[in-house]
Amino acid sequence: MRNIALIGMPATGKSSVGRQIALVLGLPFVDMDETIQSREDATIAEIFERHGEPHFRAIEEALIAEVTQAPGVVATGGGVVEREQNLQALRGWGWLVALIASPEAIARRVGRADQWPLLKGQVVENLQKLWARRSSKYLSADLVVDVGHEDVDGVVRKILGFLAEREPVASIDVNPGKAQPYRAVVGRGILGLLGHYAREAGLSGRAGILASPAAARRHGEQICDALQGAGLDPVLIEVPAGESVKTWESAGGLYGRLAREQIDRTGCLVAMGGEEVLDVGGFVAGTYMRGIPVVHVPTTLMAQLDSCIGGKVALNHFRAKNLIGFLHHPRLAVADVAAVGGSGARSMREGFAESVKYGVIADADLFAFLEAHAAELLDESGQRLPELVAWCLRTKARFVEEDEEGVGRRMLLNYGHTFGHAIEASTGFHRYTHGEAVAIGMTLAARVSAAMGLACESLETRQSALLRRFGLPTDFSGVATSRLVEALWRDKKRQGASLRFVLPNCVGRAEVRGDVPIELVARVLGEHGAAPERAPGA
Amino acid sequence: MRNIALIGMPATGKSSVGRQIALVLGLPFVDMDETIQSREDATIAEIFERHGEPHFRAIEEALIAEVTQAPGVVATGGGVVEREQNLQALRGWGWLVALIASPEAIARRVGRADQWPLLKGQVVENLQKLWARRSSKYLSADLVVDVGHEDVDGVVRKILGFLAEREPVASIDVNPGKAQPYRAVVGRGILGLLGHYAREAGLSGRAGILASPAAARRHGEQICDALQGAGLDPVLIEVPAGESVKTWESAGGLYGRLAREQIDRTGCLVAMGGEEVLDVGGFVAGTYMRGIPVVHVPTTLMAQLDSCIGGKVALNHFRAKNLIGFLHHPRLAVADVAAVGGSGARSMREGFAESVKYGVIADADLFAFLEAHAAELLDESGQRLPELVAWCLRTKARFVEEDEEGVGRRMLLNYGHTFGHAIEASTGFHRYTHGEAVAIGMTLAARVSAAMGLACESLETRQSALLRRFGLPTDFSGVATSRLVEALWRDKKRQGASLRFVLPNCVGRAEVRGDVPIELVARVLGEHGAAPERAPGA
Repeated sequence: MRNIALIGMPATGKSSVGRQIALVLGLPFVDMDETIQSREDATIAEIFERHGEPHFRAIEEALIAEVTQAPGVVATGGGVVEREQNLQALRGWGWLVALIASPEAIARRVGRADQWPLLKGQVVENLQKLWARRSSKYLSADLVVDVGHEDVDGVVRKILGFLAEREPVASIDVNPGKAQPYRAVVGRGILGLLGHYAREAGLSGRAGILASPAAARRHGEQICDALQGAGLDPVLIEVPAGESVKTWESAGGLYGRLAREQIDRTGCLVAMGGEEVLDVGGFVAGTYMRGIPVVHVPTTLMAQLDSCIGGKVALNHFRAKNLIGFLHHPRLAVADVAAVGGSGARSMREGFAESVKYGVIADADLFAFLEAHAAELLDESGQRLPELVAWCLRTKARFVEEDEEGVGRRMLLNYGHTFGHAIEASTGFHRYTHGEAVAIGMTLAARVSAAMGLACESLETRQSALLRRFGLPTDFSGVATSRLVEALWRDKKRQGASLRFVLPNCVGRAEVRGDVPIELVARVLGEHGAAPERAPGA
Repeated sequence: MRNIALIGMPATGKSSVGRQIALVLGLPFVDMDETIQSREDATIAEIFERHGEPHFRAIEEALIAEVTQAPGVVATGGGVVEREQNLQALRGWGWLVALIASPEAIARRVGRADQWPLLKGQVVENLQKLWARRSSKYLSADLVVDVGHEDVDGVVRKILGFLAEREPVASIDVNPGKAQPYRAVVGRGILGLLGHYAREAGLSGRAGILASPAAARRHGEQICDALQGAGLDPVLIEVPAGESVKTWESAGGLYGRLAREQIDRTGCLVAMGGEEVLDVGGFVAGTYMRGIPVVHVPTTLMAQLDSCIGGKVALNHFRAKNLIGFLHHPRLAVADVAAVGGSGARSMREGFAESVKYGVIADADLFAFLEAHAAELLDESGQRLPELVAWCLRTKARFVEEDEEGVGRRMLLNYGHTFGHAIEASTGFHRYTHGEAVAIGMTLAARVSAAMGLACESLETRQSALLRRFGLPTDFSGVATSRLVEALWRDKKRQGASLRFVLPNCVGRAEVRGDVPIELVARVLGEHGAAPERAPGA
């Protein structure tokens, strides 16, 4: 997200607008005139009087050099534009937004013009002179807003709308068969634009924001401001972190909370957090008052590049994860990669595991991108993350469009998951994260595929090397083969059909097979870490 | 449902087929040969030997006269068809179903022919003679089944299929916008055909039957047999009666039960009972393993003529009835009016209240039908019930097709419900049944409509007279106006919009109005039973 410099005629509301924009975007705000007055301990009129305009302009120029060192929103003094070097510095730093109005309109706003030394005397006439001198500068800004007929909220909305369109975000359209089409927006530092995107998606009214404690702490205030700024009426509802939010009991408690907060069919839910919060948020939204819209705001990499589109919502049951669930597509998903920063390295690795999966089953170019940029992706600053998230979502959107219900091609998305679930279940869902289990599962599936003569030569090597570069495991330890086979068998029963595996053919292509010999499964499990059977009593 | 007489060549399985058909249809079974042998304490061969064939035929004829006095399934002796008066008696009583096979096929089945006196000696030759004599009779049956290549199950399925097509049932097609089209079948004594209808609807596999205790006791065995006969694998799961089944806790307990019973995505649920069971069954089916099909088998009149189509499924929350819910259309609904017999007079009246609603809002002919046949409908034998149920469902199906989500025209279905809910809520949901509250609500809405000059003259009189003929209340007692207005106001908040009423214009036409003055509402409530306000402390 680029920074914002507000320029413009006097008394056009640069300070109020700048303060609100900064709040919504979560950036620091500098009001130049105020800063100068405070530092000089004098009003601008006084500085003009004592030291003359050139002195003031010099202070201004120094302050611009100072504020453009860091991210932020700055409201400049009206005369800043008269020095070309000021404009250049500001342009290099952020968006230039000009607030203008006719001299007559400004004169009406000003009333007494004491604080603007240049307007003293004949206000309208002076304004006309100012306009004649500066208008070409103002009109060359990136965005020009005539504030004559707008209040502050209206101006803020216009600027946020401009940003939402100009910022380098990726927009992925999802067109599921039966549900309403929607889009996922991916970018960096775009949480503050949530309100704008929500309005564009047709949302309004009371908005309940379900957020994990971490997400609420980091982003709660910002997205409340963003939604409020767009005319929605937000309320933050904190929910437990992790899998505990995905229980029947936890979900059941939310309906009363929503009713108490007076959320109704004219409003919506916003689910902000990892995939568990998205799951429970989607489930509750889809069943509250016969279904209200949900907006997904994922804050983990896996949730961003996978869970936030597709509409699968689910609760866990002690008999099986995700036993309870149905399809309720979000109305909008907003993935701000700046928000995954706090989720930790292990959580990031989960996301990378899913992205490797997308590469193997559907997109050799994505796989090559991962190979080429693994180091940059792992880097703290993660410059390549938006590209990765958008790429994975685009891949997933194609699957969802071709097979909304997940009975055909969408089954490929289970690559690594059959083995992965068995490993998770046999280790009590504690030892490995879902992503780690999927990484091991993909390794096993690739091995099975190779043993059956279905995989091209380089597949296993490339996949394992890439998984390891992301710090993901490719084998496991300490679980007896029989327990894993048993877990696989339970899965088969749940599917109500033969045990099916997604087997990769080469990087970028995979198939669903129902004819994998169980002996081969057991052998591969043994090779990759399953402990051999112990004799009874041994 | 008409009775069934099996005729046919010897050794074609009439007894086994008849026994199974009777089980599925819940009818008594008579095997004529067996009955005669038992009564005469002699084998048929012995009777022939001792008394000659004419004696045996006379006994047979007497037995036919006897069994055709009551409903049932009868397997006749092979020679029954040789007397025209026998055939006439059987035809007058039920469907004539002939089981035939080639003499060679029969000879193979017979082996030793000791029990068939007429086959003694040259079996094939004798069979050919029999066939020559009787074939014209067999081939004139209502249904002729060649059993040469069918086992008993196959023959039973063919006969049930025939019945499902020929019985005087009404079939209502429902075409909701997004969900799969489905049909509702209405008739008398058709529960035994459930398996056939389920197969036609594409269902198979493990079928969990959620049934209220009363429904399980009365029909559990029969519909298990019916589903089993059609190749499904049923399991009866008893659930609590009444509103207590519609809680979050009660629904939550069912997922584990389904998993334990190994119901999976290849199977289905059958919800059998009143609207509460249909509601919870639909909710659980729609959320189990991302949604499995549900079949509705309503056993109260209201559930039959209203709840069993349309797909609204819901659970109650202490803050509001039906707060939790979404759309999950059934794959099939089977309304057997014979099943409402045990539900009691008050439950029947609930159904009549809903049918009056359909008449007023959408169908003047239906209203006239209700006026003309109220007495017959109230009669225990309820000959007109299938007509009523089918008529109401057809009316509702039109609403569902035009407005699946219930945001437009389908809102008219709430006629009487705004006032009704307020009255139910203010009396703790105990004093009045839902149907009774709707009856009062319709009376109040008609009054409001008249007071606003929106209703034709005869509407109120006709509606009140009809409601009273069905034993439904048109006024109430002992609730303060302020409590009712408060309850209405809570409803308004839930709607998130202005308080809207469905007001009737005349019999067969209604509209949604948002401009009803609250003073008028209070006045009408006062006129119809709301207690005047007491002064504080009085």
